[in-house]
Formats: sequence, C-alpha cells, structure tokens
Amino acid sequence: MTRWTLAPEKIPSAWFNVAPHLPKPVDPPLHPATRQPVGPDDLAPLFPMALIGQEVSTEPWVDVPGEVLDILRLWRPTPLVRAERLERALGTPARIYFKDESVSPAGSHKPNTAVPQAFYNAQEGITRLSTETGAGQWGTALAFACAQFGLDLQVYMVRASYEQKPYRRVAIETWGGSVVPSPVDDPDHPGSLGSAISDAVRDCAGRADTHYALGSVLNHVLLHQTVIGLEAKEQLEMAGERLPDVVIAPCGGGSNLGGIAFPFVPDAGVRLLAVEPASCPTLTQGRFDYDFGDTAGLTPLLPMYTLGHDFVPPSIHAGGLRYHGDSPLVSALVRDGRMEAVAYPQGKVFEAAVQFARVEGKIAAPEAAHGIRATIDEALAAKETGEERVILFNYCGHGFLDLSAYDDYLHGRLPDEQG
Amino acid sequence: MTRWTLAPEKIPSAWFNVAPHLPKPVDPPLHPATRQPVGPDDLAPLFPMALIGQEVSTEPWVDVPGEVLDILRLWRPTPLVRAERLERALGTPARIYFKDESVSPAGSHKPNTAVPQAFYNAQEGITRLSTETGAGQWGTALAFACAQFGLDLQVYMVRASYEQKPYRRVAIETWGGSVVPSPVDDPDHPGSLGSAISDAVRDCAGRADTHYALGSVLNHVLLHQTVIGLEAKEQLEMAGERLPDVVIAPCGGGSNLGGIAFPFVPDAGVRLLAVEPASCPTLTQGRFDYDFGDTAGLTPLLPMYTLGHDFVPPSIHAGGLRYHGDSPLVSALVRDGRMEAVAYPQGKVFEAAVQFARVEGKIAAPEAAHGIRATIDEALAAKETGEERVILFNYCGHGFLDLSAYDDYLHGRLPDEQG
Repeated sequence: MTRWTLAPEKIPSAWFNVAPHLPKPVDPPLHPATRQPVGPDDLAPLFPMALIGQEVSTEPWVDVPGEVLDILRLWRPTPLVRAERLERALGTPARIYFKDESVSPAGSHKPNTAVPQAFYNAQEGITRLSTETGAGQWGTALAFACAQFGLDLQVYMVRASYEQKPYRRVAIETWGGSVVPSPVDDPDHPGSLGSAISDAVRDCAGRADTHYALGSVLNHVLLHQTVIGLEAKEQLEMAGERLPDVVIAPCGGGSNLGGIAFPFVPDAGVRLLAVEPASCPTLTQGRFDYDFGDTAGLTPLLPMYTLGHDFVPPSIHAGGLRYHGDSPLVSALVRDGRMEAVAYPQGKVFEAAVQFARVEGKIAAPEAAHGIRATIDEALAAKETGEERVILFNYCGHGFLDLSAYDDYLHGRLPDEQG
Repeated sequence: MTRWTLAPEKIPSAWFNVAPHLPKPVDPPLHPATRQPVGPDDLAPLFPMALIGQEVSTEPWVDVPGEVLDILRLWRPTPLVRAERLERALGTPARIYFKDESVSPAGSHKPNTAVPQAFYNAQEGITRLSTETGAGQWGTALAFACAQFGLDLQVYMVRASYEQKPYRRVAIETWGGSVVPSPVDDPDHPGSLGSAISDAVRDCAGRADTHYALGSVLNHVLLHQTVIGLEAKEQLEMAGERLPDVVIAPCGGGSNLGGIAFPFVPDAGVRLLAVEPASCPTLTQGRFDYDFGDTAGLTPLLPMYTLGHDFVPPSIHAGGLRYHGDSPLVSALVRDGRMEAVAYPQGKVFEAAVQFARVEGKIAAPEAAHGIRATIDEALAAKETGEERVILFNYCGHGFLDLSAYDDYLHGRLPDEQG
C-alpha cells in the first residue's frame, strides 16, 4: 500500500501551538512608530480579535470552530503517500513519505488558514478583505474562502507573478475576487511580497468594513497550518512508522513548513529542514533582527531572519518563496538550533521536479519542488551511508498553474541564480 | 459527512463489460476498404492483442492486471463527494453526489485507460506509441502512463487546443512526451479529433516499434473506465443510498460517460444521461450509421451516431467534446432507449461551472462543466416537483489547465453557439 487516508472525522479538532515548546520565547512585535511592543488595540484595525488572541496565545492547543471544520472537510484529511517509485528510482534505503496538500480546491496548503481567517472576520461583521499574493496561491485560497462566507476580496498580486502566471488571476476572479498587480504605483516594478503587503495594508486603512489578511509569517497563520503535521503524525503511525528522521518543507514566509514541522518540535530526535531558494536566502544568509514585514514600513517590526525589508529578490518561478523576511516562530527555531536550513538554485530544483513527475506522476508547484530537491538529496545521503532513514516532506501544492516554469526549464530558458 | 473514500485495496480488480447487458448487440466494425467485418489481424498493426481481445469480449468481467492496479493505486479509489453546498444554494430536495476523477496525476479520468493501454503495449514489446489529443487531457494522461513503462510517445494535438491551452502541451513534455499541432499538413486549420486521429494512425503505419492508442470511443477504452462506476456504486451504498435516480456525464467520445454509467445499465430504474455541447450535438442531432472514426477515412467504420466524419466543430473550450462520432456502445444504448442525451451551449455551461466553483470550491474542466449544467437542471426539476431525487455525476476533470476559458467567460469574450 502506498497511500494512507484518514476518515473525515479525523481532521484535528484543535490546532497545535508551538509557542510553549520553543527553546526560548519569541520577542514581541514592535510598533513601527514607537518601537514599543504592540498591543491588541494596535492590531484591531487589521485583524479580528479572535486572530489577535491566537497571535499571542501560549495555550498548547486552540480549538478549531465547527464552521471551519465543515469547510476543511471538503478536502481534508489529505492523503499521506509513500513515494515508492521515487525510492526505487534513487536506489535508496530511505522510506520517503509526502503529505499531499495539493488536493485542496486552490491546489495548495493555503486554504487551511484562509478558511479560518475568512470565518473569524465574517463573525466579527467584516464584509471585505484585502490581501497580497506572490505566485497567487494565497490569493486563490483566500478567494475560495471568501466565497464560502460571502466576503468581498481585493488581492494585490506581485507583478512578476501577475504577468508570468495569468491563470491564478483568473482563478481568483472565478471565485469572485478582484485582483490588481502590485506595486500599484509603479507599473515597471516586478514587485515583491513586501511591497504587495504595503498595498494591501494601505487598502484597509480607515475602512471599517475591511480587514487585512496575511497568508504566512504570522503566528496565527502557522497555527492554522498545523493540521498538516498533526494528520501526518497519525498517518505515519498507520504506515507502521514511529517518527520520521527528518521533516522537510520549502520556506518562504514559513507557513507550509510550520504546518508540517511544528507538531514534531517536541520530538527531540526528529530533524526539521527548511528549504529556500538561493536567490532569496533569508534563513541561510539573512541576519536575525527586528525588521518590517513590508517594504514601506507600515507593519509592526518582527524579530526574524531578514534580508532587509527593501530587498527585491529576482523574479524566480517559486514566487511564494520570494520574501525578504520569515516567520518569527521559524526564525527562532533556526536561531536556537532546533531547525536547519538549506538553499538551492532553481535549476537544481526543477531537475528534481521533473524526475519526481516522471516517476511519481505528480507535477509539483515550484515551491513544493524545493522540498523535493532536498528530499532527494537526503535520500541519496542515506544511500551513501546505507541508512534506513524515514523522510517526510510537504507536497504543498501542484504545479498545474505553474507550467510556464516547466516550459522554461525544459526549453533551456530558465535564468538560474547563484547556488 | 460529505466525502466517502475507499481503502486502496478496494480498487475494482475486474472491469465491468457492458456488452452482455445491451438490449441489442453492437454491430461489428467494418474494414475501410472491403466493408467486411474487421478481424484481429486487421487491428494488429495498431493495437496489442490483449486490447483487441477486450474489444470483442463478451465476458461479463475482465481481470485488471496487478501491474496496472499498482499504478492506479497512486490515486484510486477516487472520492465520492456529496455536493451539499450546491444542494443548499439551489434549495433542492435532490441529493447530489459526484465522483471526483480530477485527483489523478493528469487531473482527469483519462489515466484509467492510459495505464492499461501502456501496460499491454509494453508487455507486447512495443517501445513507442502515437496518439491524438483534443483539449490535451488524453495526451497528458498517456504521457504520464508511458513514463511509468518507459515508452516513447508522439502526440498529435488538435491545433485549436494547442494554441488555446499551451499548459497541457508543457505537461505532456514534462512527462517526457513529444507533441505537435494537428493537422500537421495544414497550419491554418483549427483541427479536430477526427483529423488528429488520422495523423496519429499515419504515424504508426509500417513502424513495427509503434502502436496507436485511442483515448475514447472504442470498447476497450470504455471498459477500462468502468472502475469509476464500480467504485461509485460501493460508495453510494456507504453513503446510505440504494441506487441513484439518474447518472449524468459529459459525452465527447463517450469514455467518462461509459465509465460511470455502464455499471448501472443492468439497474432498470436508473436513468442515464449524456451531456454534449450544442456546437457538436452528435447524439442529439446526428444520424445513426456506419462512419469512419477519423477525417481521412483510415480507421474502420463504426456503427454510431455521427455528424459525418468531415464535420469540423467550432473551437469551443470543451475540446474533449469536439468529436463528430461517438462510442458504438454509447450509441447503441441511446438508439435503444436505455440512455438519454441533452445538449447545452457553452455560455450556460460556464454559468453552471462558476456557480459550482463558488459554492463547492472546485473549478471544473469545461467538459466536466457540461455534466454540472445538466445536474443543476435535474436538481431544479426535482425542486419543482418536490422529489427527493438522487443524482450522481462524473466530475471527470479539473479546470486548472482551462482557466483561459473562464477568463473568456468572466470577461464576456466567450463566443456562444446556438442552444
């Protein structure tokens, strides 16, 4: 058998909060003007109180509302798959498992947090959300979620992706959202997640009907994603494994990584590995410091690894990984040695993605392909040493909307960054 | 609960042969030159003997080889989903179920037959296949399947789709296949399935290493698709239903329709409904006659509903439904009154697809959207009469590679045909 499914009633009914399990607590976000710790009132114009509460919660578990479970059940629990054909192709003694988050309506892990964010906003009487999106995975996910709760949505899409990947724009519009390229005030700029966040935050300033929603980085976002790792733990047990030796996921802002890895933080023997693009090496080459979440300096200052909030990464295909900063929770785990990080150039990443597509059948999103690259290298290292390593990676999205990237790779048009 | 999954060992281990259950037997195909019934030797240059045997089999069940099951298990059994949000949006007393064939690697039902076709060819020592593809669903599926068995693949893609839907070309190439637009000898012609079949048949003529593979129409193709209906029957029972009142599927060549509907042919009370585009109304406006399967008249003559083998349908977005003829098995069922047919213009089809996307979250392939249109109309008819009708439809593919069609619809650029 190669796939493990859980019954619909096995969706975790509580999210796993990693905060109480950190080696050291995370420092608080600071107000951009006063540089004092922000309080709930500072955040209230942007987020509903329920999410602000989750942002600072130190409770080990946070209940998932029934209305959220009802929608997650459209595609969750997601399958855990053993990549036996990849193992055979590599000739590795490692056992490779992946969590298939590509089966969601938007085709990625992003709806796991889009749904609760839309729910809590609707519950507080908000009727409209604004957000940014990189490759478009977050924008599509939030458009789907807003359609479930009757919320209007305005998406600011990083211009490079808006132009490279028109299909994700169409998907957002199919679910009823509106989308414009960002930065809105400079049509020649390729954009970045940082500048798109600035546009989205400006949009909701002073509008009582509108809140802002973020698809990664913040504590509550990563909290919502922990359904991935919680399900995977149960499914690995069904597969006869005790614990994985290593958990691997790509890292842009940290949400799919946190989602699969956080539930394994208390398990001391389990290595946790973040994979990022060599062109935007936040964890591997950034500095740990307070920095703004956006380009314009409108957001609170967050304690994180950063390349500087004015850093503009090259227009690589894994648009979801083009972020100057990183989740404070992920950053703290890397700083304190509980998590490792590695960076790859995109040519090596697509080489792994094509190999995976041919043996396992699945065409990965460029973001997910970063995890596949690292997985293959871990499996080859296990072959070298003859170890029976158990590898778990997050297949965080499919690549059906990213095929122009494969086209570029297959026809030698992929500009490669330094590796 | 809204989703029913079966354990991996519950994939049907035998295909359901509808032949013994037809009201009247199907007349044999005729040789294009002699107009005499074709024998196995006539077909041997095109197909392996195992498939030729299945083509004429009258056995009620045909075993699925273990090597085929091993690959089908990468995504099968597929989920059965109750579309409760759609039911609520329509205010219907009907219970609506769909079989989700979009979860396959290629995103449609097509791999169900691509895998056994590649397997039987590889087993007979064939090293290369040629085929046609309309919207690209079949070409991608066969490229995936050929990658599993190390076969080379040459795809002739209907030019209209090749130009409208470049992403499917890239997917074929990602799995290692080669693809050219068809007709190869007329770059100004939009093409049709009929002319692409001619190109593919010509390709393998006189090449001992190459066979031809067809993604629909023929008996063995529809046989392989019956895993859909067999699983659905078992899952409906899990959902507490006895039998559906009506089974609905789009119909181009008939493969996804046959796949879901044939296992219900012996169940007298179950209505079977084929849905086709108004621009290519084979079953609703064609004549029942012997006709060629392709434009050039290279294939055997088949007894079927046809619009004439020189009919060139308009370039609608549901490229998979642009076929002048139809499966002889489906044609016989319609002729003999066991199956109904209805045709819709594409504007009405996309209206239903957008409604479905907003309430159920899933963006359907334009082909699948034809079934959604008919399902919504059946559910509204049930509301009219207050009936508790049970509707089953085949969600035969996702629309992530067809978003240009939604773009056209949402921005008023969809040329509509007569309805």
